[in-house]
Amino acid sequence: MADTISFARGAPSVDIVDVDGLRTAAERAFSSDPAGLTGYGTAVGYLPLRAWLAERHGVEPNQVMVTNGSMQADAFLFHALVGAGDTVIVERPTYDRTLLSLRTRGADVRMVQLEPDGIDVTALQGLLAAGTKVKLAHIIPNFQNPAGYTLSAAKRRALLQLARSHDFTIFEDDPYVSLRFEGESLATMLSADPGRVVYASSFSKTVCPGIRVGYLVGPETLIADITRLATNTYISPSMVSQGIVYEFARSGAIDRSIETVRRALRERSQTLCRALSEHLPDARFVAPEGGYFLWVDLPSGSDVAALQTAAAERGVQFVKGGDFLLEGGECSLRLAFSGVTPAQIEDGVARLAQAYAVAGSPAHAA
Amino acid sequence: MADTISFARGAPSVDIVDVDGLRTAAERAFSSDPAGLTGYGTAVGYLPLRAWLAERHGVEPNQVMVTNGSMQADAFLFHALVGAGDTVIVERPTYDRTLLSLRTRGADVRMVQLEPDGIDVTALQGLLAAGTKVKLAHIIPNFQNPAGYTLSAAKRRALLQLARSHDFTIFEDDPYVSLRFEGESLATMLSADPGRVVYASSFSKTVCPGIRVGYLVGPETLIADITRLATNTYISPSMVSQGIVYEFARSGAIDRSIETVRRALRERSQTLCRALSEHLPDARFVAPEGGYFLWVDLPSGSDVAALQTAAAERGVQFVKGGDFLLEGGECSLRLAFSGVTPAQIEDGVARLAQAYAVAGSPAHAA
Repeated sequence: MADTISFARGAPSVDIVDVDGLRTAAERAFSSDPAGLTGYGTAVGYLPLRAWLAERHGVEPNQVMVTNGSMQADAFLFHALVGAGDTVIVERPTYDRTLLSLRTRGADVRMVQLEPDGIDVTALQGLLAAGTKVKLAHIIPNFQNPAGYTLSAAKRRALLQLARSHDFTIFEDDPYVSLRFEGESLATMLSADPGRVVYASSFSKTVCPGIRVGYLVGPETLIADITRLATNTYISPSMVSQGIVYEFARSGAIDRSIETVRRALRERSQTLCRALSEHLPDARFVAPEGGYFLWVDLPSGSDVAALQTAAAERGVQFVKGGDFLLEGGECSLRLAFSGVTPAQIEDGVARLAQAYAVAGSPAHAA
Repeated sequence: MADTISFARGAPSVDIVDVDGLRTAAERAFSSDPAGLTGYGTAVGYLPLRAWLAERHGVEPNQVMVTNGSMQADAFLFHALVGAGDTVIVERPTYDRTLLSLRTRGADVRMVQLEPDGIDVTALQGLLAAGTKVKLAHIIPNFQNPAGYTLSAAKRRALLQLARSHDFTIFEDDPYVSLRFEGESLATMLSADPGRVVYASSFSKTVCPGIRVGYLVGPETLIADITRLATNTYISPSMVSQGIVYEFARSGAIDRSIETVRRALRERSQTLCRALSEHLPDARFVAPEGGYFLWVDLPSGSDVAALQTAAAERGVQFVKGGDFLLEGGECSLRLAFSGVTPAQIEDGVARLAQAYAVAGSPAHAA
């Protein structure tokens, strides 16, 4: 069998990670702040990085905490805000790990349809008008995982309006924000109404995943509560990881890294869209403006489970749409283009189209 | 006021951390395994470090997981094993963060007296004979925090015998094991009965705390359960931190680091014991054979709270004995000698003795 081509994992290939820059940042960080890197820090994170983030977001440092990756930030946030039975809005489809975390906490998870310009705010408004008391709305505004869609400026305003009038918190989960390769950036909901929004992001996509540095921005009292949770869980996050990220950011290496990543993602996304149009004309999708993912809808009656098996036999991996949903998704799949080169993408889509022809298309479904 | 001298925090001073060695290890780690350091790892930790640890403990790699510091390992372990109402044995006194974690989980925490040769196994046997159903016994066998005492070989055997006959698990919490500066090392309980013991340790004391690398060794099924918890919490721990620790360990730098730390701790401990005998003859203590801590009992009627205030006025900090207990401890305190130089120790004990003379001794208690 030919080499495996994975459209499954939302992770960068190592060729677009600035390893030399990281090595240099590590060397400088140990030299410039040995006590800060090697000593116990505090649960809010490495203080210079926290201050750098606060400045970037135009907030006070005590509204920021830096964690071992942003999933850990999510876990603390859900622990602090979401109890069993609390209603939490998520997008349909949404990130599978978020779904699992919320369901494990016993939350009443309500999925609201995600449209190409973001969550269906009219449907959400209907839910709220019908009396649903929402605690939290989890939103991935830019280049959403898994769909690749971006929330429009108008819908950002509408969401904030709903949050204010129905007294819920928006969790703006924004790891892909820096990875826009087409169009204009949109202002965060955090910047529009910092009292209504808890914001999370990460350096996994701009530095590298293995460094495990994410962060949370929110109201001071909530950050203080979560800091206590973090202290009791791990005393402090990795000062070495965070000190290296700070040096990488401070020195400007991060801006060059983001340019490298964006350029690669643009080429990969364009290659993927072109290859799908050519080899798999049944595929319907919206070309993403950034990020890692593209969502494919196949015609009604397609069998994505059979397609996955047939694709695996041809050395191609992807994630089924149903993994990002509570039910349904049998005709949809997520393709991640972050970890594959253009040549792999061409080859992978050709093989995927073969698999579809023999097993996944409506003609073959039982 | 003179400079503050802290006997409060169990952390090394930066002069005994091998910062140059860490910088070199970081450089080599990024060069030798760029994909492994920068990519998402798995929740079991950086695989070469996991294998290195498995070999050191004579177990299979799937019995080991490496975490963001050992407190995080404890948190996962308690989540997996301890439910509300479960009886957990701890030493009296014991590490305050462990006490807090267990009480937050709603555990039925029973303290059993710690003697200079370790937990009072006869008292524990009495509890068990009276019908107490124990789930877990948390034991810090070497140079215990806060007491500095070490569990004897005979008591290690007795404890394992009780665990087998009464079907409970021993949590052998062993972060100080490498820091012996007097006497002979004792075999771990893990090595004697790997089916009855979950073992945790850390690189905080042998590399540095800010790197946040700890680990857990236990039965394969338990490690698999905890790995699932970890995946859902943070995907993977810091590969950068763990890759640097692996290189530091593999290259032998860790052995030199441990020698440096041991030598410094021996000198600090000896200085502390001598200074106490000279300046504060009321202090009763057992000279530790390793680790960071020394426990001081003052005569009945002493007021350690008043002593703490008077010491703080003289720029000296320590932790009150009561912080490591559910009740009592008014005449005891913990002195950490890991973060203070011999000169600071001399000065600090002299000031502590002044504080005792004016405020802490039984003569001044109400």
